[in-house]
Amino acid sequence: MLKVGIVGGTGYVGIELIRLLANHPKVKLESISSVSYQGQKVEDIYPNVLNIVDLVCESSDEVINKCDLIFTALPHGLSEHIVDKCIRNNKVCIDIGADFRLKSEDVYKKWYQKDFEIKDIHKEAVYGLPEVYREQIQKSIVIANPGCYPTSAVLGLAPIFKNKIVKPDSVIIDAKSGTTGTGRNPSQITHFSECNENITAYGIASHRHMPEIEQTLTELCGGDVIVSFTPHLIPVSRGILSTIYVQLKESPSIEEIHDIYKDYYKDEKFVRILPLGQVANIRNVTHSNFCDISIHYDSRSQRLIISSAIDNMIKGAAGQAVQNMNIRMGFEEEEGLMLIPPAF
Amino acid sequence: MLKVGIVGGTGYVGIELIRLLANHPKVKLESISSVSYQGQKVEDIYPNVLNIVDLVCESSDEVINKCDLIFTALPHGLSEHIVDKCIRNNKVCIDIGADFRLKSEDVYKKWYQKDFEIKDIHKEAVYGLPEVYREQIQKSIVIANPGCYPTSAVLGLAPIFKNKIVKPDSVIIDAKSGTTGTGRNPSQITHFSECNENITAYGIASHRHMPEIEQTLTELCGGDVIVSFTPHLIPVSRGILSTIYVQLKESPSIEEIHDIYKDYYKDEKFVRILPLGQVANIRNVTHSNFCDISIHYDSRSQRLIISSAIDNMIKGAAGQAVQNMNIRMGFEEEEGLMLIPPAF
Amino acid sequence: MLKVGIVGGTGYVGIELIRLLANHPKVKLESISSVSYQGQKVEDIYPNVLNIVDLVCESSDEVINKCDLIFTALPHGLSEHIVDKCIRNNKVCIDIGADFRLKSEDVYKKWYQKDFEIKDIHKEAVYGLPEVYREQIQKSIVIANPGCYPTSAVLGLAPIFKNKIVKPDSVIIDAKSGTTGTGRNPSQITHFSECNENITAYGIASHRHMPEIEQTLTELCGGDVIVSFTPHLIPVSRGILSTIYVQLKESPSIEEIHDIYKDYYKDEKFVRILPLGQVANIRNVTHSNFCDISIHYDSRSQRLIISSAIDNMIKGAAGQAVQNMNIRMGFEEEEGLMLIPPAF
Amino acid sequence: MLKVGIVGGTGYVGIELIRLLANHPKVKLESISSVSYQGQKVEDIYPNVLNIVDLVCESSDEVINKCDLIFTALPHGLSEHIVDKCIRNNKVCIDIGADFRLKSEDVYKKWYQKDFEIKDIHKEAVYGLPEVYREQIQKSIVIANPGCYPTSAVLGLAPIFKNKIVKPDSVIIDAKSGTTGTGRNPSQITHFSECNENITAYGIASHRHMPEIEQTLTELCGGDVIVSFTPHLIPVSRGILSTIYVQLKESPSIEEIHDIYKDYYKDEKFVRILPLGQVANIRNVTHSNFCDISIHYDSRSQRLIISSAIDNMIKGAAGQAVQNMNIRMGFEEEEGLMLIPPAF
Repeated sequence: MLKVGIVGGTGYVGIELIRLLANHPKVKLESISSVSYQGQKVEDIYPNVLNIVDLVCESSDEVINKCDLIFTALPHGLSEHIVDKCIRNNKVCIDIGADFRLKSEDVYKKWYQKDFEIKDIHKEAVYGLPEVYREQIQKSIVIANPGCYPTSAVLGLAPIFKNKIVKPDSVIIDAKSGTTGTGRNPSQITHFSECNENITAYGIASHRHMPEIEQTLTELCGGDVIVSFTPHLIPVSRGILSTIYVQLKESPSIEEIHDIYKDYYKDEKFVRILPLGQVANIRNVTHSNFCDISIHYDSRSQRLIISSAIDNMIKGAAGQAVQNMNIRMGFEEEEGLMLIPPAF
Repeated sequence: MLKVGIVGGTGYVGIELIRLLANHPKVKLESISSVSYQGQKVEDIYPNVLNIVDLVCESSDEVINKCDLIFTALPHGLSEHIVDKCIRNNKVCIDIGADFRLKSEDVYKKWYQKDFEIKDIHKEAVYGLPEVYREQIQKSIVIANPGCYPTSAVLGLAPIFKNKIVKPDSVIIDAKSGTTGTGRNPSQITHFSECNENITAYGIASHRHMPEIEQTLTELCGGDVIVSFTPHLIPVSRGILSTIYVQLKESPSIEEIHDIYKDYYKDEKFVRILPLGQVANIRNVTHSNFCDISIHYDSRSQRLIISSAIDNMIKGAAGQAVQNMNIRMGFEEEEGLMLIPPAF
Repeated sequence: MLKVGIVGGTGYVGIELIRLLANHPKVKLESISSVSYQGQKVEDIYPNVLNIVDLVCESSDEVINKCDLIFTALPHGLSEHIVDKCIRNNKVCIDIGADFRLKSEDVYKKWYQKDFEIKDIHKEAVYGLPEVYREQIQKSIVIANPGCYPTSAVLGLAPIFKNKIVKPDSVIIDAKSGTTGTGRNPSQITHFSECNENITAYGIASHRHMPEIEQTLTELCGGDVIVSFTPHLIPVSRGILSTIYVQLKESPSIEEIHDIYKDYYKDEKFVRILPLGQVANIRNVTHSNFCDISIHYDSRSQRLIISSAIDNMIKGAAGQAVQNMNIRMGFEEEEGLMLIPPAF
Repeated sequence: MLKVGIVGGTGYVGIELIRLLANHPKVKLESISSVSYQGQKVEDIYPNVLNIVDLVCESSDEVINKCDLIFTALPHGLSEHIVDKCIRNNKVCIDIGADFRLKSEDVYKKWYQKDFEIKDIHKEAVYGLPEVYREQIQKSIVIANPGCYPTSAVLGLAPIFKNKIVKPDSVIIDAKSGTTGTGRNPSQITHFSECNENITAYGIASHRHMPEIEQTLTELCGGDVIVSFTPHLIPVSRGILSTIYVQLKESPSIEEIHDIYKDYYKDEKFVRILPLGQVANIRNVTHSNFCDISIHYDSRSQRLIISSAIDNMIKGAAGQAVQNMNIRMGFEEEEGLMLIPPAF
């Protein structure tokens, strides 16, 4: 049994990860840390795991000492030093925060107003989107788990960017997310009375997931990519739906494009390309690690419209982190992730 | 035009009151105060009234000076001194907080852990439930607007308590409230991700609205009343549904009981006794000042079951405050309150 | 008092219209018709209007005979003959269905698979979007009330199309609607267990509101317009948010564009251009006749992003119909429509 | 691998059962039947199992022929003949409908207006509430899976009825259920626009789960029991919360009662007695087979208040059916049911 731990285990990503790891047949969840709740039992903070998870929050050092693989689930800016310690102790680290996602320090600085503090460790990191970077993930010591929006958007776009059939400046991503993406801290925007019966865009043209999306698309097509990305908050707990509009360089039939998608993902366990005529929605993927993708052609405007749905907390966070662990450790990729989405 | 003002105008009850008063044909909303937002425009705090309400938050003294009738919408313990100032300036005050609802200082002390600080003004106050205390409301200088749960529960019980046909120790009130009842401040319990897809009881056997319910029922029947009261939080923004279980002293037919209810409320504009066979729900009263009541007889257990529904923010707070103002000032009672509940 | 009636009064638009007309100071709601419920009382079908609306469903002929102005709220294809009767009786008709919205019979045929049956009456009709066609509305005998999505989209785009600063083939409208837009009939897609905690696109590149949007934009700019339009169903009862992406011909500053919007709508009571930096949402407009519009510039992709929010049942249907009546009859335009959106 | 099948596999209970069985390590889901969808693939009816469940709906005879254990998930009145066939073929049958729950034909007739058609098979049936009838379940050929409300109510009451410390005529069960309990067929009451932002009681004093609750409580305490039971529909997809009010014969301390509960359930894997001071809610049990129970004492009215929460589709239906199968077949009781409730 692989001993695993979580630094920052009491946020929403942390508790979701606890839930997945507690049922994973190849690992033992050995230790978790929390600055806010050190010394407290997890089941007292999250009564959903009452009688199931018997852990007390410890310090991050204890987690690193006790475990062979460490997940960090921290606000951005706080992972670097933890990851550095992991590396120095030769322990694999899967960082679910943003600190290692962007490869360019300049880009990171522009969007996060912060330097790379420990510069040389960043080149050890791989961007942990298995469907694009599986080979590198197999051998990296630091895996930067992607953001939730980028996971949904990039999976929806990878086949046509890899095949270079899309106009790279034509991409518009209109994304809708459930509230768990904002985390556990109460705020006005997620106060039930204000979030319920509402929908609003936020971070228009300024969300930090934008450069992350562009970085991967640029690598896929080999040229510069600028996207428009507008996230919205919708009154559901889980799920992200990205509706993506692109223009293609030529005019393949929708069947040909569908074949490109099916071919690109033919060996992927967690990406489902829907039959033509069906439309992806979040209900069919929430509580699972799946990404459902449907494609549609608007012949009047000659735009391809892609609908890409994930559970933001699973494929968009904790589940993908487990998938990365499985790849890195040589486990079956779906180990602990055979979650069938409920019909309701 | 009557000049009216609100002390504590930026909480949820405050903004709902602003909305009602802005459309009231007999009053001018002259001034509102807010400790947190003094100097700020209401429309910057609540963009729903953009271009509609042109007020800047002032001090409570300015409100009292400028207005003839003052609403206080403050956390309990903060109204007493404001009300005292109003009285000394001979201005009618409608207090939507809890400070003047309980007549007995002992009871108040037990439930609020606090003395009456300015003792003699409490005897000026009338409990502002128009359907029970209309005559006193017409001439009081201080009107204590009832709590939301007590409004729903007492209206559902008043006819049978007034007619003394109910066993006074048999009352069980199982109440379900929307989230606006908890106010504007974000908290874990009203955090969308935790409140959504959930229902929970809270304050079991210890909620401060319990003595308030008992006080009025005791006055209605002339004997001591102890009730069981369990509030629940449900994932809707507005509305309270009280499901009430009682045992009757004798065994009238359901039609006779129905007649008692219809007779008791025959002149009431805002209480609707549903035809036998229909069941009250919150959707048919939200966004209005109505209280819908349906009654049901369980012949096997010989219990009467009453379903009583209100909008917690209107009949349970701001609307009832306006109704009290209308009564006190001699306006038509439904002035400014002809809100037809939407079908959806 | 103007005598008004509704043909097809028991659908969702019908009951919302009843609610608005019952409180309108210049009209008397004289009669409504319903094929499904003829002979039944409205309050038995919609208990929200219990004790408020005292009408029994009649035949459409009775409505036309008794009233001076008739609203038709019928599924498409059923209005033509009713409207024809109204015209022959010289009665103003406001049709909330789709039969008179499209001016070209060819376009109508393509999208509705149906001819204009009574051809000559179509040229009497004006498209009832007051902010664009107010002058024509003042004198028409048939007013085609716009669809909900077109209202939200066209109001968000009119200023830049009128000023011809937008590239006409660049428009992408990603719209999100509450469930009341689908009407009263239960279906799998609006079954609570399937609609709740879900979001899905539908009618991608094939929704009938698309040609309606294009028709008005084409008239505004004087050139052909093709848009991409993707509606989504979100788990809220009311409201439409359209997130609109366009490219401009030149590069004005965001302040200049903001001025164009403010100027275009400077005399409009029901369109609110939000201050720069704020974002439109549906909560601030639901239960009112307002359209809130916010604009945003994405300097990286050089796209203008417009957020336009309405209540689909009010500004998107029944409220706009009342607004059209007010304009046509010479009433104050906001008569009966001074609905302040609630904060929650 | 045990071959299992489902007769009536395309309702909500059916698809939830499919989901659980597809991941159960000891069984193979061999065949399902559906009258409405015969010949169709499950994944076409329920796209959530796309690429996961590769079954085509067959006839009920095929299910019975191919499988060793059969689940029936049918509307009441339709199971009897299927179960009879199973028995005659010596195959264990777990009936999730109501046909075998009530032992008295008179009671069944009174509540379901229907005779037992095949009388002698009813005495083979055991009521499948494992925490009360585990020993009988181990050896029965017909297991009548309990209703969702009775599961929640009886588990909340069993310890005090078994210990005979409760006044048997004092029980009031105020239950709140999510919408999946009404099944897959759309109806007005579960139409999103009408169910959302609403709560209503239904079936007051007349719901068919009432005699089922009474039957088990009567067996537990050895005396006649009449309960008041009021179900409510709340706007959540999953979960039942029962708030239960009882009077005790004597006055034990809350700690003593708590000990009674903990002792009664000390070996149970799926019942969690919360620490005193905590309150059960549905979020902490949904998507799992747990029943969470919290107890509270109202010293003023001397009532014990019990809060009992389950997922209506799992512990209240499909999960309990799997639990019964595990018990009957000698598998570990939690096999295939180690579902950790998510925190959100």
